Amino acid sequence: MILTVTLNTALDLTYRVRSLRPHASHRVSEVVERPGGKGVNVARVLAALGHEVTVTGFVGGGTGRAIRDGLAGIAGLTDALVPVAGASRRTIAVVDELSGDTTQLNEPGPQTAPAEWGTFLDRYEELLDGVRAVALCGSLPPGVPVGAYAHLVRAARAHGVPVLLDTSGEPLRRGVAARPELIKPNADELAELTGSHEPSRATQDARRRGAQTVVASLGAQGLLAVSPEGSWQAAPPAPLHGNPTGAGDSAVAGLLSGLVEHLSWPDRLARAVALSAATVMAPAAGEFDRTAYEQLLSRVSVGEGISAA
Amino acid sequence: MILTVTLNTALDLTYRVRSLRPHASHRVSEVVERPGGKGVNVARVLAALGHEVTVTGFVGGGTGRAIRDGLAGIAGLTDALVPVAGASRRTIAVVDELSGDTTQLNEPGPQTAPAEWGTFLDRYEELLDGVRAVALCGSLPPGVPVGAYAHLVRAARAHGVPVLLDTSGEPLRRGVAARPELIKPNADELAELTGSHEPSRATQDARRRGAQTVVASLGAQGLLAVSPEGSWQAAPPAPLHGNPTGAGDSAVAGLLSGLVEHLSWPDRLARAVALSAATVMAPAAGEFDRTAYEQLLSRVSVGEGISAA
Repeated sequence: MILTVTLNTALDLTYRVRSLRPHASHRVSEVVERPGGKGVNVARVLAALGHEVTVTGFVGGGTGRAIRDGLAGIAGLTDALVPVAGASRRTIAVVDELSGDTTQLNEPGPQTAPAEWGTFLDRYEELLDGVRAVALCGSLPPGVPVGAYAHLVRAARAHGVPVLLDTSGEPLRRGVAARPELIKPNADELAELTGSHEPSRATQDARRRGAQTVVASLGAQGLLAVSPEGSWQAAPPAPLHGNPTGAGDSAVAGLLSGLVEHLSWPDRLARAVALSAATVMAPAAGEFDRTAYEQLLSRVSVGEGISAA
Repeated sequence: MILTVTLNTALDLTYRVRSLRPHASHRVSEVVERPGGKGVNVARVLAALGHEVTVTGFVGGGTGRAIRDGLAGIAGLTDALVPVAGASRRTIAVVDELSGDTTQLNEPGPQTAPAEWGTFLDRYEELLDGVRAVALCGSLPPGVPVGAYAHLVRAARAHGVPVLLDTSGEPLRRGVAARPELIKPNADELAELTGSHEPSRATQDARRRGAQTVVASLGAQGLLAVSPEGSWQAAPPAPLHGNPTGAGDSAVAGLLSGLVEHLSWPDRLARAVALSAATVMAPAAGEFDRTAYEQLLSRVSVGEGISAA
């Protein structure tokens, strides 16, 4: 069993419009609705890979009901979300039919009370018994302490459960100091954490700050991994066209499944890159194309060492 | 009791963002959620004026539950909405903090089955017994026949209940031919119905097509009414600044309440203009400012005849 934590779950809406023009009125021609938040996306990919996965975090209101209804149909996924009084947020991706570009609107998430955070901590401690890995993913809803992830990392370590942390800003900074097994920042998050825009240097710095392994996702350049066992770079065989929504979450699912399956680092990275690329290539945002994934798996290039200083 | 019909009810969301830029990602700083659709807005204003009002139409899904929850708290308003399998639509008004301008995104509404339309017709016939007026408002959800309003107008007339019709396009064209007591088109809707952009001529033409009285809403110029009893123009005392969302629905509520209270046409028009202006001036979209309404009521200018040919 793998556990993913999504404190700020979301109802993800995708709207199709002809062309978004500020201050105009638009008819939405198509609405797609699905449960979201990074940890939920990671869990969906893990379940599709055949892993048993439990989802926890906060959920509330009518949007929360819609999230739970959406999760109920996923084989291999257990809903252990903790109810809160506030309503889960929506995110809206407005896709232009003309340009294919996407405009994103993200609600902030529900105000969360200290007692609700306390209830979640109890639930999390219970869930840690018997899980093989935990992923802590995404933003914090208002009211959750900024050191939340640091606390959750320490609790997992106390249970001997390896932790992957995928967040940004101050929650990432504090979480890293609690020494997680793995972080997966993108270039911007890594630069914000370390002050360096040079991925190789920034990755080393992030390790000094406490992360045992850093896997930096560098968009088209693929993944850069620096771990106690060595360094690797992994990239897709060709430039990708498509929608990058959820590609990072698929990479997290690849790394996490590779960890619990005891794959070598090169195999974990190949899986993460192939899943990520197959997500960009899928027609629906945030889903991965299984055929593309299986074809890409043997075609990802993984090189040892770091090529650019 | 007044009855309002909203076949395409909505959950109206207002998002506040700093500045909407296509293809960028935005944090929504404030979310306001309320039940909507034109007939629901009309009913809320009627209830605020002290009228007993019943709301019918279709409602479904999680958004439908949120709509019903929002209506449950309104004194004087009875929920007689008919459940459907599909989910009620959302509308999203994205307000720019910098410019104050609004970008609108409107979902299409749920696919409605013939059997659901049949169930609604039965409910509508029951509700017509004992109501003093009915307002038929807004767009039709997919699957509802384009002649729906014509049918509902005829049914009301058969029960001796006066009908106000406020819609657009082909549903308006067909509805007008069924001879409603009153239509309240804006300048665009009137031009689309009649082919004339000259309000006085277009209003006369709309009457020839079947509407007993036409009250055209001409934005800053106020209302132009042509009825069997005569013609009037009514305008607010000064140009208005604010958000015009819901101003037309407030005008409908003013006309409808004036009808059941047997007010003279000049008094009905003064009320409709004052309510409409007080809605533009209210801080929250679609609400009216009661103090402004009461102050404006005696200051609306109502002139007999049509000044411009």
